[in-house]
Amino acid sequence: MERQQLLMLPGPTNVPPRVMRAMMRPTINHRGPEFEKLYEDILENLKYAFQTHGDVFPISASGTGGVECAVGNLVCPDDRILVPVHGVFSQRVKETVEAFGGKVVQLPVDWTTAPSVEQIDEVMEKEKDIKASILVYNETSTGVTVRDLRRIGEVVKRHGSLFVVDAISILGGDELPVDDWHVDVCITGSQKCLACPPGLALISVSEDGWRTITRDKDRRHVYYLDLLKTKDSASKKETPFTPSLPLYFALDEALKILREEGLENRIARHKKCANAFYDALHALGLSTYPEEVNRSNTVIATNNPKGIEDRAIRDSMRQKHNIVVGGGMGKLRGAMFRIGCMGIISEAEVTATVAALELTLYDLGYPVTLGTGLKKTREVFHA
Amino acid sequence: MERQQLLMLPGPTNVPPRVMRAMMRPTINHRGPEFEKLYEDILENLKYAFQTHGDVFPISASGTGGVECAVGNLVCPDDRILVPVHGVFSQRVKETVEAFGGKVVQLPVDWTTAPSVEQIDEVMEKEKDIKASILVYNETSTGVTVRDLRRIGEVVKRHGSLFVVDAISILGGDELPVDDWHVDVCITGSQKCLACPPGLALISVSEDGWRTITRDKDRRHVYYLDLLKTKDSASKKETPFTPSLPLYFALDEALKILREEGLENRIARHKKCANAFYDALHALGLSTYPEEVNRSNTVIATNNPKGIEDRAIRDSMRQKHNIVVGGGMGKLRGAMFRIGCMGIISEAEVTATVAALELTLYDLGYPVTLGTGLKKTREVFHA
Repeated sequence: MERQQLLMLPGPTNVPPRVMRAMMRPTINHRGPEFEKLYEDILENLKYAFQTHGDVFPISASGTGGVECAVGNLVCPDDRILVPVHGVFSQRVKETVEAFGGKVVQLPVDWTTAPSVEQIDEVMEKEKDIKASILVYNETSTGVTVRDLRRIGEVVKRHGSLFVVDAISILGGDELPVDDWHVDVCITGSQKCLACPPGLALISVSEDGWRTITRDKDRRHVYYLDLLKTKDSASKKETPFTPSLPLYFALDEALKILREEGLENRIARHKKCANAFYDALHALGLSTYPEEVNRSNTVIATNNPKGIEDRAIRDSMRQKHNIVVGGGMGKLRGAMFRIGCMGIISEAEVTATVAALELTLYDLGYPVTLGTGLKKTREVFHA
Repeated sequence: MERQQLLMLPGPTNVPPRVMRAMMRPTINHRGPEFEKLYEDILENLKYAFQTHGDVFPISASGTGGVECAVGNLVCPDDRILVPVHGVFSQRVKETVEAFGGKVVQLPVDWTTAPSVEQIDEVMEKEKDIKASILVYNETSTGVTVRDLRRIGEVVKRHGSLFVVDAISILGGDELPVDDWHVDVCITGSQKCLACPPGLALISVSEDGWRTITRDKDRRHVYYLDLLKTKDSASKKETPFTPSLPLYFALDEALKILREEGLENRIARHKKCANAFYDALHALGLSTYPEEVNRSNTVIATNNPKGIEDRAIRDSMRQKHNIVVGGGMGKLRGAMFRIGCMGIISEAEVTATVAALELTLYDLGYPVTLGTGLKKTREVFHA
């Protein structure tokens, strides 16, 4: 019998019924008065989510489309761009910069860890004329969060470079005060911590960001993704091109839920759930991929137990327990499974996942005393 | 009291309840087995809609994003591209080509008409090395359809150029057999004649198209919109980046409806409704913008009656009759109103719109005998 799955993926994530129902609102004229109020509400609530007084816009495209939007607006041929690579998504950023003719200043970092403020400072000291530095705050492929992000932002700005942050799998689930942390351009996706369906990217631009985009506007290779057009239309409470209306309705509702809960509460909730996952996994004798100091509160990357393939774990969890978790990506394919800890995440989803994992490991012959993980989650939620 | 509007816009259009409900399907893993079947069905049914044996893909972006996808994959810096400009959307195509570094070979055409096969032949004879010719088949801003399209395609291919067609506001509502008409790349949008919500572009690529894209792959400025990535992923029944899932569910259902009706029947239905509109409008003494031979069956562009502003007509229709029609665009703003004749269009929508228009004109002091337009629509539907 068809049942609704529990999506414990690092995106897309479970969508609250209120947000699903919002997509049923009848289609409206995106050039009419009905759209204006919707767009105003979205833009205002996005500023809250991003903690910025600058501009934030939805873009009708997926998260990677949001990164292409940032790169396409900022990176002109031969511009020098710093991109630390420490996973699949930062590698994508690097390739996108190259696709737009930028020269990437490389900073390879071990995938279990994050670029440090010292490394960034050293590279920027040595290399001159770095137009922008693009960091992936939360590497969805490795479960690594750049815990130095605030200090890195200070260093990047001190060197006169733009600070661009790919926060696709983290914004709304962990700290990221865009203005306080000197982020010039920040990108996230609808289908991660905001608990919306996939299909929208969200992008913020600071004053410094606008200055650069405006200065170089005729050297960019964008049209649909042109942020100057988006800004200009927003002043008339419109989008330059037809918006993805059902997803706008969904985002509007998801942002209202975010405001009702409060950003601080939401971040604390994600952190508590992540702690419960880590404690439970470690108690079960499993190891997690990232070094502890940089581990993510939104993506729990867990190494395969010796002799057991993640494919077997994931298949069993999906088929027997109706719970979907992700596999590894890139060079980590076949080496780990990844649990999303995003959006509506609460004790219920954490314990259901841990219980299913315990039973799955047990069935696959891994030495586990049932209840070991659940004991730990209980400690976290009922301390 | 809130009521559902009748959307008689040139997009977005009314969405059938079946398609709306499809968006309520629970989110799935886009890298899992649940997605594979969905994507297979969509790709197969898109080939039917485009009448092609080539590839057709959905792109998570609006129609203009689809044009950016075509241009970004085909147009490399300094490539010479022919773009006849005869309205707002062909002007957008021209600007997109320029944004990607292409050199536009211009062919300005009066906005009431369409580029002719002779004009195209003459330009291509004179100018050499035109890599691609991009035509807007149906100019949404003027209600002009390029009735010579099939013959133009023959000429373009004879000159060794790629034939690219922006069919955003027409595919599914009028003739466009992509293979028979030698179209190498064809773009449409979800929210027009396919009667889906907005948010997806659909794009086809021929063998010749793939050859060119592959040859020039390292000179393009695209990543998210890279069609080679899309093709490569499709061979694994995946999309390269997270798809806009609710819109994929909606598209899947909309394409099933299209197959149930049959493309030929659907096109005949659009044509009959358009004829009813034109006959009724002319009987009311109104004039339509395009020359008759190239008038569109999907966008009815109607000049303002002497002394009456389209704003007054549109406001009255929306406020009193709950029917939304569009205004003019670009230099035609304030000079016309545009009625969408797309998607679920049938006698019911045509007569409701004509009746509301008659009453509106009457209320605004235009000399009209009530029933004049309706008499004509009746003749068309019950001949």
